Amino acid sequence: MSGDLGERAASHVREARLWDRHMELARFGATAAGGVDRPALSAAEAAARGRLLEWAAARGMTAHTDTVGNLFLRLEGRDPGLPPLLTGSHLDSQPTGGRFDGVSGVLAGFEAVEALLDAGIRPRRAIEVVAWMNEEGNRFAPGMMGSEVFAGWRMADTVLAARDADGVSVADALAAMNAALPPLPVRPAGFPVAAYLEAHIEQGPVLERTGAVIGAVTGIQGKQTWRVTVTGEEGHAGTQPMAERRDALMAAAAAILALRAACAGAGPDVMLTVGRLVVEPNAPSVVPGRVTFTIDLRHPDTALMRALGSRIQDICADRAAPCAVEAVPLIDAASVAFDEGLRRRTLEIAGRLGHPAMELPSLAGHDARPLASVAPAAMIFVPCRAGISHNEAEWAEPAHLAAGTRVLAALLAELGEG
Amino acid sequence: MSGDLGERAASHVREARLWDRHMELARFGATAAGGVDRPALSAAEAAARGRLLEWAAARGMTAHTDTVGNLFLRLEGRDPGLPPLLTGSHLDSQPTGGRFDGVSGVLAGFEAVEALLDAGIRPRRAIEVVAWMNEEGNRFAPGMMGSEVFAGWRMADTVLAARDADGVSVADALAAMNAALPPLPVRPAGFPVAAYLEAHIEQGPVLERTGAVIGAVTGIQGKQTWRVTVTGEEGHAGTQPMAERRDALMAAAAAILALRAACAGAGPDVMLTVGRLVVEPNAPSVVPGRVTFTIDLRHPDTALMRALGSRIQDICADRAAPCAVEAVPLIDAASVAFDEGLRRRTLEIAGRLGHPAMELPSLAGHDARPLASVAPAAMIFVPCRAGISHNEAEWAEPAHLAAGTRVLAALLAELGEG
Repeated sequence: MSGDLGERAASHVREARLWDRHMELARFGATAAGGVDRPALSAAEAAARGRLLEWAAARGMTAHTDTVGNLFLRLEGRDPGLPPLLTGSHLDSQPTGGRFDGVSGVLAGFEAVEALLDAGIRPRRAIEVVAWMNEEGNRFAPGMMGSEVFAGWRMADTVLAARDADGVSVADALAAMNAALPPLPVRPAGFPVAAYLEAHIEQGPVLERTGAVIGAVTGIQGKQTWRVTVTGEEGHAGTQPMAERRDALMAAAAAILALRAACAGAGPDVMLTVGRLVVEPNAPSVVPGRVTFTIDLRHPDTALMRALGSRIQDICADRAAPCAVEAVPLIDAASVAFDEGLRRRTLEIAGRLGHPAMELPSLAGHDARPLASVAPAAMIFVPCRAGISHNEAEWAEPAHLAAGTRVLAALLAELGEG
Repeated sequence: MSGDLGERAASHVREARLWDRHMELARFGATAAGGVDRPALSAAEAAARGRLLEWAAARGMTAHTDTVGNLFLRLEGRDPGLPPLLTGSHLDSQPTGGRFDGVSGVLAGFEAVEALLDAGIRPRRAIEVVAWMNEEGNRFAPGMMGSEVFAGWRMADTVLAARDADGVSVADALAAMNAALPPLPVRPAGFPVAAYLEAHIEQGPVLERTGAVIGAVTGIQGKQTWRVTVTGEEGHAGTQPMAERRDALMAAAAAILALRAACAGAGPDVMLTVGRLVVEPNAPSVVPGRVTFTIDLRHPDTALMRALGSRIQDICADRAAPCAVEAVPLIDAASVAFDEGLRRRTLEIAGRLGHPAMELPSLAGHDARPLASVAPAAMIFVPCRAGISHNEAEWAEPAHLAAGTRVLAALLAELGEG
């Protein structure tokens, strides 16, 4: 009986409608190269949220937000007092991001709700589609602000005080975004949730290479981030003898290559990225006096990751001499395992719907990480071309997005009766 | 007789007046750390020029400018038809520059003229004190725009079309600066000059270490600048396998260290600086797709410098694989030798005035480089503490600045009769 319900819901997922909505939201913050630049709480995100609110209103859904700017679209259930099912992802993107990372999870959730409505299914539990505030963390650091406040990992006040590179606070950017949108009820962040389901592109090559269309995600690898400051001394490029320089950029280059060598020595699953590096004063004829860079370190084995992380200060200081080094930890997130029952059910539904499926870990962080600490959580991956993500060339097949959404719709329909 | 004239002029140099003027101009663009941030054609430079114009008017000097924004303050000679003596330097600074680089040459020239006036000396030749437009090259690249146009090395139109990082052209910035100042006659750039004399802090440690107060500069070492672009591919910091990355920052770090090793192998006099480096998209969780950096390469031996420069593309490409590298040459300036007669006269005057003097090369570039191609040119160095320059901690002793100005005043007084 529950199986029939899931298949009925899945059968009403409309691939073309889902795809068109992806392309429509991709206009907000569209880049010349076909990607998306939609920072958290930007005018582009406000516009994307506005469109989503229109679509939700047209389907009779209600909307509310919370003190940190998470957006919820609610399909009321037959029993409004029960904790809802929650599904979604985020609408913000990297500066040269693609059209799928984040937004496809929000749109999969919305399409699944539409499929239920089109199938005439009104679940016992309410379903809420969520767009989390600032998953990416590039405008306001660190990322996953909205979901981490929701899960009680961070204080709302701390998050609201964070500032972007121009000195604009989250609080001010949020007020500006809200002012650009229809007024919504604002609730405290966090409420009881029956289960959290997040659809997402894989952002890696595994599904594509194995020919699977559905990934039932086992968990998320651990992640540490660091900010490293290398302090030398400014000097004149033409007059200061090389032997007397304390060149912060030369020191940083040596430190970064030493970190890479140390990580390579710890095995092929270690991910090390120095994504952001800033030179001061950054003038062609001045020996750099200071360099600041970020480290993003990930590994499925939390202990191994932390052992590597604990060596960062020493490795950098050793190679950066005579410059001084300060390595400050920002994020230290252990690996997380998703709910086993939901994962088995995802595989089982994919099988019933005829979509080749497999289990795999998530190498990227997601809002599902904090959510897994307050509710049973699952993620459904679909392939993305060549594993390319955080890139304007990011691409997912319409049929794959629809397949993931069918599994999600079936899961929601069945869990909605539980 | 001519010797008496020089000593009379020198004796009227006033150390306190000269120092106070340094401190007063240092207010325009003053930084919290005691340095100066006075980009070319900025409001801060406009203000400094405005003060200089007031001082010049108070001493009966006339002022004019030219099509590229060089500023000239003229003490009329007894024979106005003769080509004038030209002396000065520049008022723009590095972003975290000091209070002496450039400005001390302009103020030495101005103080020397005041000393002549105070001594009742009206030279046969006019003396013009010049402030060249954009010597430093950090706001508009490359530097020495004003002096190179004056010497016919560059076209005025090309220089006026150059833009800063915000897209503002030299032409627009110049119009804005001129609008903030009293109207001046604007002449075509370049006119016949009897001799060019530039006083400057050494920006190196040689005078201080040897105990000399006056440096008679033999010439300027050769300089090449390059812009290197390393192109890789953006990727997700958590999901893209390390072995499959084309990380432009890792590639750039390896290339820069290889360049340093190659330069170190060519001897202790090679100066290599990567002063500016920009990462794109510069986001913590995105594998860098592109890195652009500058190279500043200097050596007294033009042939050796050029041999090293010719290897830059290959060294970078070799180390940056699998990323692509493009090294573009921007400046290729051979070594220059200053006028031998003027240099001997500088040493001789320093001896008469009792200032310990020596010959030394300039490791930094100066406006005197292009000027040496259109007139007999000389530079007079004074010590700067620990050789530190292009740095907010830059420092010169008031007595040393006065000593250099005395030598300059004597030279101007004597050459003014020639």
